[in-house]
Amino acid sequence: MIDRLAQQIAFILEIDKMKTILRQNVPITEPHRQENDAEHSWHLAMMALLLAEHADEAVDVARVVKMLLIHDLVEIDAGDTFIYDVAANQDKEEREQRAADRVFGLLPEDQGRELRGLWDEFEARTTSDARFAHAIDRFQPVLLNVATQGLRWKVHGVTADRVLARNRVVGDASERLWSHLQDLIADMVEQGHLPPGPQ
Amino acid sequence: MIDRLAQQIAFILEIDKMKTILRQNVPITEPHRQENDAEHSWHLAMMALLLAEHADEAVDVARVVKMLLIHDLVEIDAGDTFIYDVAANQDKEEREQRAADRVFGLLPEDQGRELRGLWDEFEARTTSDARFAHAIDRFQPVLLNVATQGLRWKVHGVTADRVLARNRVVGDASERLWSHLQDLIADMVEQGHLPPGPQ
Repeated sequence: MIDRLAQQIAFILEIDKMKTILRQNVPITEPHRQENDAEHSWHLAMMALLLAEHADEAVDVARVVKMLLIHDLVEIDAGDTFIYDVAANQDKEEREQRAADRVFGLLPEDQGRELRGLWDEFEARTTSDARFAHAIDRFQPVLLNVATQGLRWKVHGVTADRVLARNRVVGDASERLWSHLQDLIADMVEQGHLPPGPQ
Repeated sequence: MIDRLAQQIAFILEIDKMKTILRQNVPITEPHRQENDAEHSWHLAMMALLLAEHADEAVDVARVVKMLLIHDLVEIDAGDTFIYDVAANQDKEEREQRAADRVFGLLPEDQGRELRGLWDEFEARTTSDARFAHAIDRFQPVLLNVATQGLRWKVHGVTADRVLARNRVVGDASERLWSHLQDLIADMVEQGHLPPGPQ
């Protein structure tokens, strides 16, 4: 008989690696280092709890939180793919599907199936919960960039038109957040922290 | 009129500091650095999702997750108090109450009141949700220490009798997890990674 607790603990130890997977953003008060996936996932879960009232369609906050806690687990194998890196985004889906098979496969079958289903739903974006989770996932890096005067945008030479194009999905879930995001970007351009891009 | 979204975003930026508050444990594959509160809180939320079935009393998993996501926010002002540091634990409660007033006070009144209530409940440990949240908060550092051959126990000269005494609260929420924790500690003693302490 397979011991459920042993499988659960093996998974819990495996996902500790999320603390070592670096993203392209920085903590506001530690701009010399990059944020990791564990920190990011915690921050998103907190944001979902607080901002759910701004979703245009009804969302199940507990499901959105769960989705955000697990949405980056595939990066344990597949790594973080920078949103503005066109080449790396081409085989992203295949790498992440393989990762999902292995990582969620560590759990007892019923739990692995449930979390995999939630991750598939997140990726498909066909439900209001998944759309809102995506909106939060896009909104957080913008907030961190604004709070650091566009630090990582400058490092990568990103322009306002690309930021707006990449984050338009925020508007699929929340007019209020999308409108606020556009205001933030306009302020950054006005303050000279983000070039507008091709006119 | 106070803008709710502006208050929520101010809070979201403030709690980014959780990424800079260091704890006494280390990530398993990065033992040269200490884990921070954001990483820790994410790990606990994941553990609660997976281990809730081992709780002796019925728990509301979504509430436990929420409780664990916020349980260390007071450390933004009060700092992390090492569980085996007797002196620092004496004024811990007063420092943390002041911190809770300020940090949760940043939010719109209704949301601040809700999260403060949840944190008070966590601290009071009078509900099954709070007891289970505490069990998870104690179980995780043990798992990290076991996975690193007692690394941080050795640094602090902690003995098995103190680990068991400090973590006995796990048994208030889950016989299964408490029994497993005792087995893990016995193994660590047997392998020479943890002195048994006074006999």
